[in-house]
Amino acid sequence: MEDARLTQLISEMTLAEKIGQLVQLTPGFFGAEYGDVVTGPELNIKMEHVDIWETGSVLNLSGKGTLDQLQKTYLQKSRLKIPLLFMNDMIYGYKNVFPIPLALAGSHDEQLLESIGAFLAQEAAADGVHVVFTPMLDVVRDPRWGRVMESPGEDVHTVAAYGRSLVTGLQGNLSRDAKIDLHHVAACIKHYAAYGAVEAGREYTAADLSQYSLLNTYLPGYLAAVEAGVKLVMTAFTVVNGMPASVDNWLLGEVLRKQAAFNGVVISDYNALNELITMGYRDDDLAAAKAALSAGVDIDMMATIFANGITKLIAAEALDEALVDQAVLRVLRLKNDLGLFENPYRGFDNLGSEEEFTQLSQRATVESSVLLKNDAAQLPLASGEQVALIGPFANSPLTLGLWGSINADFSKVKTLKAALEAAHDDFTYAKGFNMYDAKVTATEMGSQFAKAESEAAQTDAELAAEALAVAASADKIVLTIGEDFLQSGEAASKTNLHLAPTQVSLIKALHALGKPMIGVIYTGRPLVLTDVEKYFDALLLVWFPGTNGGLAIREMLFGAATPSGKLAMSWPRSVGQIPLHYDSLPTGRPLTTANANERFVSKYIDCDNTPLYPFGHGLSYGQNNITCELTKITFNHAAATIELTCQVNSDTVAVEDVLQVYLQQPKQAAVILPTQKLVATKRISQQANHALTISVPLAELGYYDNQGTQHLDDGAYTFEVGLSSANLLTSGTVTVTQ
Amino acid sequence: MEDARLTQLISEMTLAEKIGQLVQLTPGFFGAEYGDVVTGPELNIKMEHVDIWETGSVLNLSGKGTLDQLQKTYLQKSRLKIPLLFMNDMIYGYKNVFPIPLALAGSHDEQLLESIGAFLAQEAAADGVHVVFTPMLDVVRDPRWGRVMESPGEDVHTVAAYGRSLVTGLQGNLSRDAKIDLHHVAACIKHYAAYGAVEAGREYTAADLSQYSLLNTYLPGYLAAVEAGVKLVMTAFTVVNGMPASVDNWLLGEVLRKQAAFNGVVISDYNALNELITMGYRDDDLAAAKAALSAGVDIDMMATIFANGITKLIAAEALDEALVDQAVLRVLRLKNDLGLFENPYRGFDNLGSEEEFTQLSQRATVESSVLLKNDAAQLPLASGEQVALIGPFANSPLTLGLWGSINADFSKVKTLKAALEAAHDDFTYAKGFNMYDAKVTATEMGSQFAKAESEAAQTDAELAAEALAVAASADKIVLTIGEDFLQSGEAASKTNLHLAPTQVSLIKALHALGKPMIGVIYTGRPLVLTDVEKYFDALLLVWFPGTNGGLAIREMLFGAATPSGKLAMSWPRSVGQIPLHYDSLPTGRPLTTANANERFVSKYIDCDNTPLYPFGHGLSYGQNNITCELTKITFNHAAATIELTCQVNSDTVAVEDVLQVYLQQPKQAAVILPTQKLVATKRISQQANHALTISVPLAELGYYDNQGTQHLDDGAYTFEVGLSSANLLTSGTVTVTQ
Repeated sequence: MEDARLTQLISEMTLAEKIGQLVQLTPGFFGAEYGDVVTGPELNIKMEHVDIWETGSVLNLSGKGTLDQLQKTYLQKSRLKIPLLFMNDMIYGYKNVFPIPLALAGSHDEQLLESIGAFLAQEAAADGVHVVFTPMLDVVRDPRWGRVMESPGEDVHTVAAYGRSLVTGLQGNLSRDAKIDLHHVAACIKHYAAYGAVEAGREYTAADLSQYSLLNTYLPGYLAAVEAGVKLVMTAFTVVNGMPASVDNWLLGEVLRKQAAFNGVVISDYNALNELITMGYRDDDLAAAKAALSAGVDIDMMATIFANGITKLIAAEALDEALVDQAVLRVLRLKNDLGLFENPYRGFDNLGSEEEFTQLSQRATVESSVLLKNDAAQLPLASGEQVALIGPFANSPLTLGLWGSINADFSKVKTLKAALEAAHDDFTYAKGFNMYDAKVTATEMGSQFAKAESEAAQTDAELAAEALAVAASADKIVLTIGEDFLQSGEAASKTNLHLAPTQVSLIKALHALGKPMIGVIYTGRPLVLTDVEKYFDALLLVWFPGTNGGLAIREMLFGAATPSGKLAMSWPRSVGQIPLHYDSLPTGRPLTTANANERFVSKYIDCDNTPLYPFGHGLSYGQNNITCELTKITFNHAAATIELTCQVNSDTVAVEDVLQVYLQQPKQAAVILPTQKLVATKRISQQANHALTISVPLAELGYYDNQGTQHLDDGAYTFEVGLSSANLLTSGTVTVTQ
Repeated sequence: MEDARLTQLISEMTLAEKIGQLVQLTPGFFGAEYGDVVTGPELNIKMEHVDIWETGSVLNLSGKGTLDQLQKTYLQKSRLKIPLLFMNDMIYGYKNVFPIPLALAGSHDEQLLESIGAFLAQEAAADGVHVVFTPMLDVVRDPRWGRVMESPGEDVHTVAAYGRSLVTGLQGNLSRDAKIDLHHVAACIKHYAAYGAVEAGREYTAADLSQYSLLNTYLPGYLAAVEAGVKLVMTAFTVVNGMPASVDNWLLGEVLRKQAAFNGVVISDYNALNELITMGYRDDDLAAAKAALSAGVDIDMMATIFANGITKLIAAEALDEALVDQAVLRVLRLKNDLGLFENPYRGFDNLGSEEEFTQLSQRATVESSVLLKNDAAQLPLASGEQVALIGPFANSPLTLGLWGSINADFSKVKTLKAALEAAHDDFTYAKGFNMYDAKVTATEMGSQFAKAESEAAQTDAELAAEALAVAASADKIVLTIGEDFLQSGEAASKTNLHLAPTQVSLIKALHALGKPMIGVIYTGRPLVLTDVEKYFDALLLVWFPGTNGGLAIREMLFGAATPSGKLAMSWPRSVGQIPLHYDSLPTGRPLTTANANERFVSKYIDCDNTPLYPFGHGLSYGQNNITCELTKITFNHAAATIELTCQVNSDTVAVEDVLQVYLQQPKQAAVILPTQKLVATKRISQQANHALTISVPLAELGYYDNQGTQHLDDGAYTFEVGLSSANLLTSGTVTVTQ
């Protein structure tokens, strides 16, 4: 359908019908057959002037049959027969779940990420879903915040690259105004903007950032996704610089709509517009509706600020109806882009084979698992070694992370224990400790996890004794540690990032046995391991590794694959170092080895400045064999790129790793810029000496000054190439003259 | 002298003579008889084109005789006989030392603070000093930062009030362009701007803040001092929002010079202009000099960026000499305001009596000490009780805090032990543990403190055993705990704010004796006491209490005075809560008692949101007897004030306390404002029922929106009156119509 016909359609709509298009509710509002009966705070959501069957979109309904049924009923009741839009909180998995985004981002594998996006789209689209609320592109430097697991991490380049790849995969490499085919979905990036900077890492607090920091660090990731054609943007329900993000004219109007020319749908986050009143920004739904609609929000998710407020505003002649029409047009365009006017019943049966998912997800786990430490090459394990496999994470399907657990088919989860059993490995398992030791209990997430609580049939002391007995008769100990999936994710902010005391005790007791000890870490966030890392010979970080995590971890433990993920967030030595990120600004009194004993330098008196594990860190089994020399560096004026040619030698063993290119602070800048900044990565997989070329887009040298003016300066630029932000192997300088 | 004559003088000066006025060096540059021979990094400071005897001001020379001698020699050598300016790092004491500023600010006693300012001025002026680098007005919400001890704390109202009082006292209640009499000095506020917001509390890192936050929270304190007529402003040597503060045209040019119409002297902090090069902002002294001079800096403290850079710039015709003349005029005006052209030898002999200082400083310690806890009214102690006085802080003169220790006469310090001895109290002392257990050693601060290191003649175990023996035969235990003075102050950032393990062990061991235990806390910053506060029946926070601290603490312990200071910074439960401040912005999902067990609310899953001790907290011996009712609240249009009339009842006992007025978040604001904001305080001292009136200036209702526009809205405003930010006794609403 053309825009003209959509405009014609709008002209035929009543005000209530228009407003309905701007409202999104959960399935229960349409009847108990579609979802939980509306209870609790949601009872406050009452449509006063808009019929429930005029609502334009539905949140989190799943199951093709159910979706079709609701669509059918809806169309029967609807006067103008504009199909419903189904949107879903599918972040990194649906029935089949991939590793969490904080892990995936560390793969630095564009092709892999696109394939994952495509798989996610395929699975959601098959089920009849139209829009998925992924990727989340909040830059985050504070591991206290639970939602770090959903984020691609602390680095602007990594976040932008992750966003571009996911959006491309999800939507099918669309140009900005193109239609979405049956096997893809519309993507919705979130949470615009800077939700990841909540104060003190506490969920839902306000963020405070300079415009310099917003423009250089926090916004580029979202805007890269807009450039990649993303169809929707979700606002943050938090406050940024004194203004709720959902009504911020600068963020939404100036930057997103005007500068980035985004003309897709902006949707507020769950209940965000009601929260404008809760947080005291405005007193009533009229004022809240006007502020949000004027700023550029098109759909009000799970609130009736638009439904009730806009109706009253128009009645009071306090709002230009053209603003309503503009939002409706954007929503109808999205429905049109999805082909809903032609076919309101999307979805299909012929999903790809399970095997495709198994391979893709195992690859994802391998490429996003981070080998933190491998002293004396205790990993990989040799076959024939008797292994004590200890720790409940090895035997729990509840290792998918929070959002991955919503629709997951837990029966499919391959745990590490199951994977070892299937391969007839020589091991003995002991649980070691109970997983659920935080204040959070499984029941908070719904009855499906209630059984987890009742798991604690044995005390930690009993479990530890059993584990020690098992370990006593083994050659090596593989100990799974970390945090349970309810300890991270939305609304799981923590002030203490150490392992639980029961885990620390067990680690010390097992260490006392004097056997090689390999730690496998399951977590949704960076933890503080400073006090315990010394007890391990090797540490393999698998994050929340996804449905087939166990299979992939087995491969890595036994050397069939090398872990090759890189940390997308720094791992601090202490909570007291937070926020800690590799791309810090320089100080006038830098700490050096020469002045380390002086007082008046930039340091703590009780802790090193450096993280325990730096951004970009991640060993691989062949990493000690890699040498790298930057042999040539040129500015390609025509292509607007810097070309770095590196000679990478690794002839003795196969390697799988990620080369990282860091830009040093340029001296010609109008403002102070970070001492180092990731500008490109290149995944290498080779068994011989190679020369390879890495392209850095010229745009990566651009920056904003503290007045909001964009710069890209001529001058000399120095780049370093290495295997982490702290392991730099070679460098070179090039002059750029535009 | 008139400006016209100063301008005439400038026209007679050579370029080198002009530039000399813009340079400040330490005494050693003028000869070994004036100070330490120049060594170390200071060797890099080489005057290439300006003679050392053309330098216009001197940093940190003390002793009237020495100052006079240098002035005399200087004037002999100087062609134009423009007297030298002597500036000094006197922050809260010279020979005689007051409690640290973070303590003093909590007194909320304008008259006391003015008197302290006047005393400080008197002592410095008598010694021949012209300018003192105080007050420091950096708002700070991060106790990891060591310089919190110098700051008036986290609250904008408190910082501004402290700044106004100190400046008024120091300069002698001057109008902006008035001359400073012989008994006063010129004050220099610092560190403009936002040095207190260094990232992660690590010294000298960059700050990142929204303009909203700068204008509403961080800048008003400095600007209040400017309004109070302060003569000098020191720039921060840190980076704010990507720009070094010393070259920031918005901070210096737009806000300070233009909006606030400040026409006094701006001086860069120690070596700050050299650090522009270190931090990579500019490559050479030409560019650095141009940036700083253009932004509005007049004097280059301890660098030769101006001396060498300006010379080269003028030679290269790359700088308008009028800019130099403008800075010189500001410096000459300051010298003229100090009467130096008429009398280059300031200083006098007839200092006030020691008794005056003793009374004033004891009063200051009492009014700034904070009674954190007093269960079952264990304090004050009854006479006749046998006390075990334990802990080295009770017997060390090294309890003045970092800046207080520079020129202090340590022989005058009255320790708590000495105070008890002098009063013939019945007590036995034991050291208990060694003070110096941090990485920082006393020698870093110079040889005068070297003896502290050798104190550790006994091991902590020996000291603990001795303390337990002493405590065993006492009725009550008074235990002094905290951090030594080198663990806070400049360049003493910490990631861990718990007491040292030796102290925690001793606390537990003493507690096991089952006797009433009173803790007396010596510290320069908020500590984390969550794990130990339960072992104490009472906790008295004395900060670093100044020269006569021991006398005042004795008075408070035995009830001759009631501690009546209030916390100017929140004391967190955990380092993981930082930054934590009472005036946080509201969230859309606030934690309430009703929803405390729900997941999706703004909280940590492992720690309360609240601090252990909130901002404004501080018990007093009569506090339980105070009731307060707001009986009337009116808007006084003519006076531009809100008048709150309170009935304060306290008829059973004498009380000494501080009433605090908090403004609730106004609903008519253009942006989100804090849930509560301190707008006025009133110290009460009474033994009967009184009605009293508190005036809130209308300006306290003003705020800036996120675009930098200032607002003062008509509408309803609700005020709460209480004894801390969390102990609110009464409230009322008033309508403002301007």
